[in-house]
Amino acid sequence: MWLRNCWYVIAWDHEIPPADSPQLFTRTVLGEPVLVYRTQAGELIALEDRCCHRHAPLSVGKREGDCVRCGYHGLKFDHRGQCVEAPGIEIVPAKARVRRYPLVLKNRWVFVWMGDPALADDALLPDNFSCDSPDWQHKPGYLHYDTPYLLICDNLLDFSHLSFVHEKTLGGSTRIAQARPTIEPVPGPNAGWPQIGIKVSRHVHDVPAPPFYQRFRRFDTNLDRWFVYDFLLPGTLLMHSGGRPTGTGPDQTGPSVRLHSCQTLTPETATTTHYFFQQSHPVGEGDATVTQSIYDSLVAAFNEDRDMITAQHRNLQHNPTLPMMPLAMDAALIQFRRLLEARVQAEQQTPSPWPHAPVAA
Amino acid sequence: MWLRNCWYVIAWDHEIPPADSPQLFTRTVLGEPVLVYRTQAGELIALEDRCCHRHAPLSVGKREGDCVRCGYHGLKFDHRGQCVEAPGIEIVPAKARVRRYPLVLKNRWVFVWMGDPALADDALLPDNFSCDSPDWQHKPGYLHYDTPYLLICDNLLDFSHLSFVHEKTLGGSTRIAQARPTIEPVPGPNAGWPQIGIKVSRHVHDVPAPPFYQRFRRFDTNLDRWFVYDFLLPGTLLMHSGGRPTGTGPDQTGPSVRLHSCQTLTPETATTTHYFFQQSHPVGEGDATVTQSIYDSLVAAFNEDRDMITAQHRNLQHNPTLPMMPLAMDAALIQFRRLLEARVQAEQQTPSPWPHAPVAA
Amino acid sequence: MWLRNCWYVIAWDHEIPPADSPQLFTRTVLGEPVLVYRTQAGELIALEDRCCHRHAPLSVGKREGDCVRCGYHGLKFDHRGQCVEAPGIEIVPAKARVRRYPLVLKNRWVFVWMGDPALADDALLPDNFSCDSPDWQHKPGYLHYDTPYLLICDNLLDFSHLSFVHEKTLGGSTRIAQARPTIEPVPGPNAGWPQIGIKVSRHVHDVPAPPFYQRFRRFDTNLDRWFVYDFLLPGTLLMHSGGRPTGTGPDQTGPSVRLHSCQTLTPETATTTHYFFQQSHPVGEGDATVTQSIYDSLVAAFNEDRDMITAQHRNLQHNPTLPMMPLAMDAALIQFRRLLEARVQAEQQTPSPWPHAPVAA
Repeated sequence: MWLRNCWYVIAWDHEIPPADSPQLFTRTVLGEPVLVYRTQAGELIALEDRCCHRHAPLSVGKREGDCVRCGYHGLKFDHRGQCVEAPGIEIVPAKARVRRYPLVLKNRWVFVWMGDPALADDALLPDNFSCDSPDWQHKPGYLHYDTPYLLICDNLLDFSHLSFVHEKTLGGSTRIAQARPTIEPVPGPNAGWPQIGIKVSRHVHDVPAPPFYQRFRRFDTNLDRWFVYDFLLPGTLLMHSGGRPTGTGPDQTGPSVRLHSCQTLTPETATTTHYFFQQSHPVGEGDATVTQSIYDSLVAAFNEDRDMITAQHRNLQHNPTLPMMPLAMDAALIQFRRLLEARVQAEQQTPSPWPHAPVAA
Repeated sequence: MWLRNCWYVIAWDHEIPPADSPQLFTRTVLGEPVLVYRTQAGELIALEDRCCHRHAPLSVGKREGDCVRCGYHGLKFDHRGQCVEAPGIEIVPAKARVRRYPLVLKNRWVFVWMGDPALADDALLPDNFSCDSPDWQHKPGYLHYDTPYLLICDNLLDFSHLSFVHEKTLGGSTRIAQARPTIEPVPGPNAGWPQIGIKVSRHVHDVPAPPFYQRFRRFDTNLDRWFVYDFLLPGTLLMHSGGRPTGTGPDQTGPSVRLHSCQTLTPETATTTHYFFQQSHPVGEGDATVTQSIYDSLVAAFNEDRDMITAQHRNLQHNPTLPMMPLAMDAALIQFRRLLEARVQAEQQTPSPWPHAPVAA
Repeated sequence: MWLRNCWYVIAWDHEIPPADSPQLFTRTVLGEPVLVYRTQAGELIALEDRCCHRHAPLSVGKREGDCVRCGYHGLKFDHRGQCVEAPGIEIVPAKARVRRYPLVLKNRWVFVWMGDPALADDALLPDNFSCDSPDWQHKPGYLHYDTPYLLICDNLLDFSHLSFVHEKTLGGSTRIAQARPTIEPVPGPNAGWPQIGIKVSRHVHDVPAPPFYQRFRRFDTNLDRWFVYDFLLPGTLLMHSGGRPTGTGPDQTGPSVRLHSCQTLTPETATTTHYFFQQSHPVGEGDATVTQSIYDSLVAAFNEDRDMITAQHRNLQHNPTLPMMPLAMDAALIQFRRLLEARVQAEQQTPSPWPHAPVAA
């Protein structure tokens, strides 16, 4: 149950080798191996990492100019995915080609469109501004999960887990779990996408600063904290969060914390997931030590999540059909799953115009 | 094909942490994760190790008094399995609960009832007296098998394998295999259980003492040996065995060996099994060295069994439908499989009244 | 989709322990475990490595004269596979037997016939003469693949891959890929087998000597190279190859290279394969150092193949139904696959007369 007509992050910009490198970058998205490389003019290219001939990965072949030659029988593909040379064959058939995926670099995230290329729409790219901004500072992160991507979406859509999973890292107070967030639809950019996600706003008053905050700024009083985020299809979180001493208002100066976080989930296979993330602080509020400290806290916390979700997944595998029990705290994740499911169903009822049928998830 | 309305051993008593320990004990039985802990009053509790909300294991949460709090979103369950607190929810729904399993401690074995709690019947507990007796001495053992539990039942129901698998440990003579045991039904405690197992009695005359015996008592003459055991549903062996110099009678004194063994098999999943075992000697006949020596012999022999059954299982997986060939030595195991199968079928035709349907094995 | 009525190599002769060894050799072929041993008279015997009783492997039992005794319950089988003793049973039933497979040793390869024994036909054995010839010298090799055997057949049926996979080992020139080989049927030995394989002849003119040749003989000029091989059912390559300085003819003396290679593939399971191989040089043309050097080159190159085919297999598993694209270079492999498929279909339409049905591949 994957959405195909949408943007998935396949890599951080810096993961793709430079144009003159002999290395070829490959990553599997929705069960499809995808090769990403840079032309000599600097354009980023995403091709199916599977030679049309005998299905060997092109990524174990080699670059020749802006082309890639398969390392098995030597077929050479240009950056459009067209085979332009096949040893011993004078006229290469036009159908000898691999799929080229629309690809966009935006603020250091490399996005790939796994569905119908004709539908690729830049207006659907999320506003991950803090990934590449003169005003914000971060250290980029990547984790691999051996669990289905929807379980991680669920996790991000319900921050009540902060009080328990992250008691000693990001959380710190059961008041986070007790606070009831407001949940609103996030409208899409055009008529084709009336809704693209869920906005979750959670405000918590008069709670101790979390261990995570204490590590980069000392607080002697309780804080008011906020977490305001959009969770967008197919699985991207864009969040403003922070805290200020209880009793001070947003218009007052004082030792507040302001953060912006961009996190996104990309299914690798039905049971494995790529997780790209960062949490930024304003450039003027903290130095490289603070940047590193935030990163370390995030990695520690996301490992806590991964342990929990992996344990949950193990239980689900014992008895996959046993129903879960929806509670008030699940409002956002239930709305998101419904939104996703409706889009997937609509998509699957549309005949697929691209070269080969999508893999069943 | 598992029987549910019966007692399975889930642990040795000493495996369950004390009431004041922060550790939570979990073990999977019949494909269901089960949490076991002690209340402050000392009662042993078995709960489904799966939060009703999002199915996270409670065992990665924490104890709070006699309750357990889920480490994912903070639901708190009392020792009856009832959810008594859910962060942010004023009135917790009554259906928010996890299954509580009937649990009985008897002679250091912790028994769990995986079926309908209303049918749990202490009269079905096996008489594992030597596990906790002032007259008998043993060292408790546990092994994990990567094979289905029925293959291990088969092994224990046909001691002709002692001559071959355990030639150099427990066996010692091909005469064990040649002896034809008597096989009788073991009647059950009430009308609902007309038969609960198979009694196997094997007497072997005038054979050398096995290496196993020689290690804790020197014998210069041949022995008469006996193995008399009940093999009870779902998979428990209770055995008197021993040997005395050939020509001496049971009413004569002399350097005999008398042992009592309790062994039981609990399916973990369709292809993995828990094995709890001990072999006791009378307190007056041997010291701690003998106890350890018996334990060591048993572990050595059970590793021989495990190697053989694992190899057998590998062959079965190559061609699962190929029929086996019943021979005279299989009488007991065939009777036991029939008894088990009849009970399982009867059970599966009865509508299941408990919270969720059993997992298909 | 395996052919059963044909010869598969199960081992090199030297892999089978001598008659007086307590070790028992086992290898799985077409998903069936097969035990191979030598009688005291020196005959090689292949029995099903699965006791008819409870399916334990006989190979974890032991030799008794020319018999094998199962290590589980002591059934003893003679070299025909007939059970001749079962502990505690006076009259062993005639149907207590394991399958005996026809087995032939030819030029150090041990061949087993997995189908109907009545159809076993020595005329179908390949002419692997250089494996045991006073005129040829080699070092025998074995590799295990975690890929289906047909993908490796494909590899051997299209040498255009030499230019790419083996650029730095066996290949050396893209001219190999550009040369169009001739492809002819290989007729069988009798009317039942009108065709048993494909003959592939590839001649390449005026190319540099490959790194592989340079290691055992120095060439200062370009060579004419040839690769002429039969690829025979079920998966055996018999090849003459070599090179001589361009402009010299076969009737002229000079620093030529002449090689003969025998390679054969045996499916272990649906996704794993045994690979037996050697490449020989004439006894007068090179010493033990050359023999070793050829072996080392071959192992290096076959590891290159294995890496490529394993990567290809991984891609195929992502999307098993996606069609490949046949190109001119695939002519031989397509013909071979058709030949194999036709024989398999014919075989599967014939009722199976042997003890148990073949495993579905």
